[in-house]
Amino acid sequence: MTGSYSLLAADLIGVAAFAASGASAAVAKRLDLFGVGFVGFVAALGGGILRDLVIGSVPPLAFSDWRYPVTAVFVSVAVFYLHPQFNRLRRAVLLLDAAGLGLFTVTGTLKALDAGVPPVGSCLVGMLTAIGGGLARDLLTGEIPVVLQRDIYAVVALGGAAVVTGLTWLDLAGRVPLAIAAAAMTGVRLLALYRRWSAPVAAP
Amino acid sequence: MTGSYSLLAADLIGVAAFAASGASAAVAKRLDLFGVGFVGFVAALGGGILRDLVIGSVPPLAFSDWRYPVTAVFVSVAVFYLHPQFNRLRRAVLLLDAAGLGLFTVTGTLKALDAGVPPVGSCLVGMLTAIGGGLARDLLTGEIPVVLQRDIYAVVALGGAAVVTGLTWLDLAGRVPLAIAAAAMTGVRLLALYRRWSAPVAAP
Amino acid sequence: MTGSYSLLAADLIGVAAFAASGASAAVAKRLDLFGVGFVGFVAALGGGILRDLVIGSVPPLAFSDWRYPVTAVFVSVAVFYLHPQFNRLRRAVLLLDAAGLGLFTVTGTLKALDAGVPPVGSCLVGMLTAIGGGLARDLLTGEIPVVLQRDIYAVVALGGAAVVTGLTWLDLAGRVPLAIAAAAMTGVRLLALYRRWSAPVAAP
Repeated sequence: MTGSYSLLAADLIGVAAFAASGASAAVAKRLDLFGVGFVGFVAALGGGILRDLVIGSVPPLAFSDWRYPVTAVFVSVAVFYLHPQFNRLRRAVLLLDAAGLGLFTVTGTLKALDAGVPPVGSCLVGMLTAIGGGLARDLLTGEIPVVLQRDIYAVVALGGAAVVTGLTWLDLAGRVPLAIAAAAMTGVRLLALYRRWSAPVAAP
Repeated sequence: MTGSYSLLAADLIGVAAFAASGASAAVAKRLDLFGVGFVGFVAALGGGILRDLVIGSVPPLAFSDWRYPVTAVFVSVAVFYLHPQFNRLRRAVLLLDAAGLGLFTVTGTLKALDAGVPPVGSCLVGMLTAIGGGLARDLLTGEIPVVLQRDIYAVVALGGAAVVTGLTWLDLAGRVPLAIAAAAMTGVRLLALYRRWSAPVAAP
Repeated sequence: MTGSYSLLAADLIGVAAFAASGASAAVAKRLDLFGVGFVGFVAALGGGILRDLVIGSVPPLAFSDWRYPVTAVFVSVAVFYLHPQFNRLRRAVLLLDAAGLGLFTVTGTLKALDAGVPPVGSCLVGMLTAIGGGLARDLLTGEIPVVLQRDIYAVVALGGAAVVTGLTWLDLAGRVPLAIAAAAMTGVRLLALYRRWSAPVAAP
């Protein structure tokens, strides 16, 4: 899929969605304009930076392709100035975030497999690509990462990464199966939100 | 020592011990099953991931050898389900953690020296290998890292790393001297726990 | 500029200033001697370590040149033992910190450009070199990073990095223009402190 315009567009939609979630969290914490831009940048691109460092692809895409940071910062600044109107878009952001989850998992897993990372490691890299930005967003704003607490989020990424790895192993990782995998992750994530599914917590 | 089964076994014991400490902290913070697995993974493998990124050995071992993440996650899930019984094992975990401290310092320092890192840097890498996972565990669970507060822990690693570097410089870094160095670190750490030694805090 | 003694001296002044700020924060949080040394090390060298990982220059300078960690740790230990006298030096530390901001931005941006990172990415790397250590210092001491909250700090670095990138593009990045750029950043930072300039916060 690498290099295609459709992939770039999909990737930038994920970046925009994650930047919006990061910038919203930063506005809620009363950070200043720079802080909002920075947390948006990290939320959108932190997972990909971690992925690229782990697979040895330096400089990471966030630094080698200006469209990634510019998209993240542009969206973050827009959230800063428009956040009251933006609150009405919360559902749209959750939808885009679920889309980003699927897209980042697929691209992260594929890049790791391409770089020669073995299957189990590639699944972990794919999952980290999807959740790394949100983890960093929460740490920067002084919260215990929400992805570790109750949500069905990272597990969707891990399962999806396993599917992508399996498809690659079966030589079936064409454009259509991968798009279906990303869409399925997005669907499961939205279903988990709608039904308020949550992972178990240990008995006290 | 690289490649030997005894080293792998030793390394995985350290991974298991650090995963248990991470998972216990995550259970205490009421994280969900995924959060417990993730914090266990990071506590066990975060130090080694940092080491491998710093010495340019990518992908890090945590991603290139499935036995490392599988051990960490298996132990973490066991802690999640068995933690009431597990509390009785607290002493065993402290013992294993002290063993992990010695083992991770030795392997981290040796890998850095092998990669051509100069002596002072190799000591720092060895120490970071041993304490990095615990640091990340505490940050993820919203705590100021305990290793920075009162304990005699990192200083043992730093001293041990200096000994390993000295042995290597003297061409004495054979299996037996290194095993003695690891055991000595474990012993000093246990003595510090038992005697409640603590590092000084600045006068107010 | 690489390799010159004047650059090394300038770099080590920045390291010393950032170590002092990290160690002061750690003393205020009642961390022990090791914690003070570690937070000082991370505050002084964290930005440079991140820079070197991103541009693929491994092992990072903090591990390959002993003068960097030794300077950071020496200053941190001095702050630990002398911090009551040290408080009277707060103005000197703020001055040195502003100098470090300018110097680290210039060297970080140049190293990124040298490593082939495109202009937008190089500006980001230059800024991260300057603010990365302070970010890590605040995370380790349990604070939301101050650079994200109100101060005019990172924006000075970002603007300065753009100037350095422009000078390089115009083939004017000689010793004198770069020194002027660093001094200008330091001046703007001090002016922002003196006039209590702050970045805007989003309307509620």
